[in-house]
Amino acid sequence: MAIVEVNVVPMGTSSPSISSYIADCYDLAKKETGIKHQITPMSTILEGDLDQLMDVVKKMHKIPFGDGVQRVVTSITIDERKDKPTSMEARVDAVT
Amino acid sequence: MAIVEVNVVPMGTSSPSISSYIADCYDLAKKETGIKHQITPMSTILEGDLDQLMDVVKKMHKIPFGDGVQRVVTSITIDERKDKPTSMEARVDAVT
Amino acid sequence: MAIVEVNVVPMGTSSPSISSYIADCYDLAKKETGIKHQITPMSTILEGDLDQLMDVVKKMHKIPFGDGVQRVVTSITIDERKDKPTSMEARVDAVT
Amino acid sequence: MAIVEVNVVPMGTSSPSISSYIADCYDLAKKETGIKHQITPMSTILEGDLDQLMDVVKKMHKIPFGDGVQRVVTSITIDERKDKPTSMEARVDAVT
Repeated sequence: MAIVEVNVVPMGTSSPSISSYIADCYDLAKKETGIKHQITPMSTILEGDLDQLMDVVKKMHKIPFGDGVQRVVTSITIDERKDKPTSMEARVDAVT
Repeated sequence: MAIVEVNVVPMGTSSPSISSYIADCYDLAKKETGIKHQITPMSTILEGDLDQLMDVVKKMHKIPFGDGVQRVVTSITIDERKDKPTSMEARVDAVT
Repeated sequence: MAIVEVNVVPMGTSSPSISSYIADCYDLAKKETGIKHQITPMSTILEGDLDQLMDVVKKMHKIPFGDGVQRVVTSITIDERKDKPTSMEARVDAVT
Repeated sequence: MAIVEVNVVPMGTSSPSISSYIADCYDLAKKETGIKHQITPMSTILEGDLDQLMDVVKKMHKIPFGDGVQRVVTSITIDERKDKPTSMEARVDAVT
């Protein structure tokens, strides 16, 4: 199990507001079976099997192209550990 | 006003668990006057005046050195816009 | 065609030096057929088909686990554009 | 001494090409006294005193606003170590 943070940025969108694209990306993630999801002010965070998560991330990256965007820059951080189970909730609990 | 995401990673810590360092970094951010803060499973997010935020980020980056860590890798994302007010809450509301 | 930047960070390695892991990750990328690669002081940059690149990135992320590391944090940035061909060389030329 | 990677992304620019903004940011970094600089296909990398580097990064982040851009997203990675000297060249040498 891994935790992945993803931030999809469409470029050349005329408006500096990109929330409609981000909403579409987040909707896609929410519809996936078997993964957990959380939205933050700066990103979407997903938890689950790494291969499945990376497939979801690739689909999220492609969404703005379907809306006519010509360039997309997507930042991803994978955090995976083998020594013990991890979860989004446990990580927040551990530092607060 | 800007929003800044920060992730401090101490290197060479023997244990893969770094939550005690992250907790110290987050405590520092919480004590700052005039900025908003939020913890996520992958980062700390801060909102306020950019100069003040960057000063806080530099202090957060330095914390693990005070605990004997020899190398720190800190990732920062600044999101600043001039066309309209923004906030951590408004950004989440816009995509959910 | 896309350009992908990747930075693999093994956690809990006792030593703050991680260059041997990075070298193994870069060796894996160099052996891949059909992609271009470049090392920088902060990352590895790859150019090619996005699906192939993401497969390589997943393999790079897994390398430190094979050496006994218990936690790996990997940062990835995908930059893909559809309006015109792009390349690592052209991008550097455009800004210098 | 620290190494800092920075990537300035102007949002809402109509065109997906942002190389003119990146060139202006890199020009600013090149004119700074006392720091080393390198351009890569995905970022600018700087080496020097951390406080000076962070001042340069803030100036780079502000450049697109001067050209009428309304939103700028800037990604920064700080890599600082205390156990031994580091440099951009030494880091590349260590993994190739």
